Amino acid sequence: MLPPIADAHPAVLVVAGTHGNERNGPWLLEGWRRHPERLDRAGLAVHLVDGNPGALAANRRYLDRDLNRSFDPVLLADPERCERDIARARELLALHGPAGRSPCLVAIDLHSTTAAMGNCLVMYGRRPADLALAAALQRQLGLPIYLHEADPSQTGYLVERWPCGLVVEVGPVPQGVVNAAICRSTQLAVEALFSLLAAARRGQLPQPERLVVHRHLGSLDLPRHGDGSPAAVLHPLRQHRDWQPIAPGDPLFLGHDGRTHAYAPPPDRETGPVWPVFVNEAAYGEKGIALSLTRRELWPVNPDWARELVRLAAGLRGA
Amino acid sequence: MLPPIADAHPAVLVVAGTHGNERNGPWLLEGWRRHPERLDRAGLAVHLVDGNPGALAANRRYLDRDLNRSFDPVLLADPERCERDIARARELLALHGPAGRSPCLVAIDLHSTTAAMGNCLVMYGRRPADLALAAALQRQLGLPIYLHEADPSQTGYLVERWPCGLVVEVGPVPQGVVNAAICRSTQLAVEALFSLLAAARRGQLPQPERLVVHRHLGSLDLPRHGDGSPAAVLHPLRQHRDWQPIAPGDPLFLGHDGRTHAYAPPPDRETGPVWPVFVNEAAYGEKGIALSLTRRELWPVNPDWARELVRLAAGLRGA
Repeated sequence: MLPPIADAHPAVLVVAGTHGNERNGPWLLEGWRRHPERLDRAGLAVHLVDGNPGALAANRRYLDRDLNRSFDPVLLADPERCERDIARARELLALHGPAGRSPCLVAIDLHSTTAAMGNCLVMYGRRPADLALAAALQRQLGLPIYLHEADPSQTGYLVERWPCGLVVEVGPVPQGVVNAAICRSTQLAVEALFSLLAAARRGQLPQPERLVVHRHLGSLDLPRHGDGSPAAVLHPLRQHRDWQPIAPGDPLFLGHDGRTHAYAPPPDRETGPVWPVFVNEAAYGEKGIALSLTRRELWPVNPDWARELVRLAAGLRGA
Repeated sequence: MLPPIADAHPAVLVVAGTHGNERNGPWLLEGWRRHPERLDRAGLAVHLVDGNPGALAANRRYLDRDLNRSFDPVLLADPERCERDIARARELLALHGPAGRSPCLVAIDLHSTTAAMGNCLVMYGRRPADLALAAALQRQLGLPIYLHEADPSQTGYLVERWPCGLVVEVGPVPQGVVNAAICRSTQLAVEALFSLLAAARRGQLPQPERLVVHRHLGSLDLPRHGDGSPAAVLHPLRQHRDWQPIAPGDPLFLGHDGRTHAYAPPPDRETGPVWPVFVNEAAYGEKGIALSLTRRELWPVNPDWARELVRLAAGLRGA
């Protein structure tokens, strides 16, 4: 029988190492555990959790299956699925899910990327509380926001199982490398999020008038030979150019034969420039993604978003 | 029984993917196989070989044991050592060793690194033919040279088993990522080496008067907690600063506690500045190496070096 938990009021969950070869978040967590005074929690109760300890120990993205694509309710409920990463997803929910033993209302999931994404937020779908928190952070730090939605080939993200949740994504940094500047950027975003959640808990969430969103349009694979092996690499003019718009005809890939492949939008795509993100991310090769394309949009901020986050944050426990 | 090989005169060996998650060299080789006209062989017979196909397929540095530390003659001769990577080392020597079925006299081993090493050469020891080839390449392209010698904890490099051999090391690039600019730099070095070997074969190797060598002094591990886990990361002032000298007192590491650890030379080290290389290389964490330190030295070029390479290159087969 599990020991009783005294602190049954919900806290904020910070997860790192959801991908075991993204080591900057786990490095921060380890430091904050050893030196709690090094993290400004803004008066909130916070749980610091390694997402996938087995993958971290192996310095691999995952063991059997990408943990950050394993939080699909159908998958989690299927008793025949027993991959180690799915078991870990169930365990995380049992421990710190909104109905878990030591429950959390908000999840902040720390990731890093080999792409030059800088310090940014990734959100999935358009939940009002997520939009309010992202808008408040963008107002404060100016971070770009990648809205990854309507992508049937990519589902089951961790933060979707909490009432409010965002991914902090920082790069470029190679897999397996801890880079002090990447850690610093990550800590800056985490502490700003705590401060905003604490403000929401007090009923005072500052919001901008408008939100800049990079809305997911689709992903592009590398050109391939008939045998399925890649026939081209990312064009050098696209490397490290995340968030910088491209237009039809711009160089996109460079073939084994020396030929440049230009960007050509699919017939069903809206016209105009597109903004690439996750350009040449190492982990996405196996997913058949060389880069994703977004549209940069300016959205009016709906006051209902902040009301929803304030309502949610009122339930958060103080430290 | 193996089929007879017609071309028993020695060629130049180009190996890539000796480490299976360094994917730029293998990408080049695949392109040159599909489009032979894309590589200027300078009239030489060349073998293009994937060093560790099993590790390449797994996108891992190695399977059981670092292949590029497995070319130790004692290890290779030990019948009880049957790691897959040692078996591959024996196979490479049986195929393309100087006494192999399809023999090679010169080995060029293509590597990449997460460190900001730029385009450089790594050599092991002071063999005259290696020094002549490195000096000729430095004269032509200005590449820095890391002389990795007198390091009892790091032995068994591939190129040491060929009469002449150099490593072309290019970075920074994450493991698992193909970057077109890294590929271009690598091809530039390979074609320049072919052109110089072809010149040596004609008896005309151009040499500079002096050679700039970064001579290995030793390696530094991260500061560690009592339990062996890292207590600090590389200081942000050192990240991506390979080849840039540091002096005693300069910031080197940054602790979990926020404290800066300064560089302090060990008592037995020669005084003066040192030049870091392989700074924060992802693969060296498991080897306990946060960075290596070198001394920059200006050596007079000995005419005997070129004579040795010319003697050797006279045996090379033309295309």
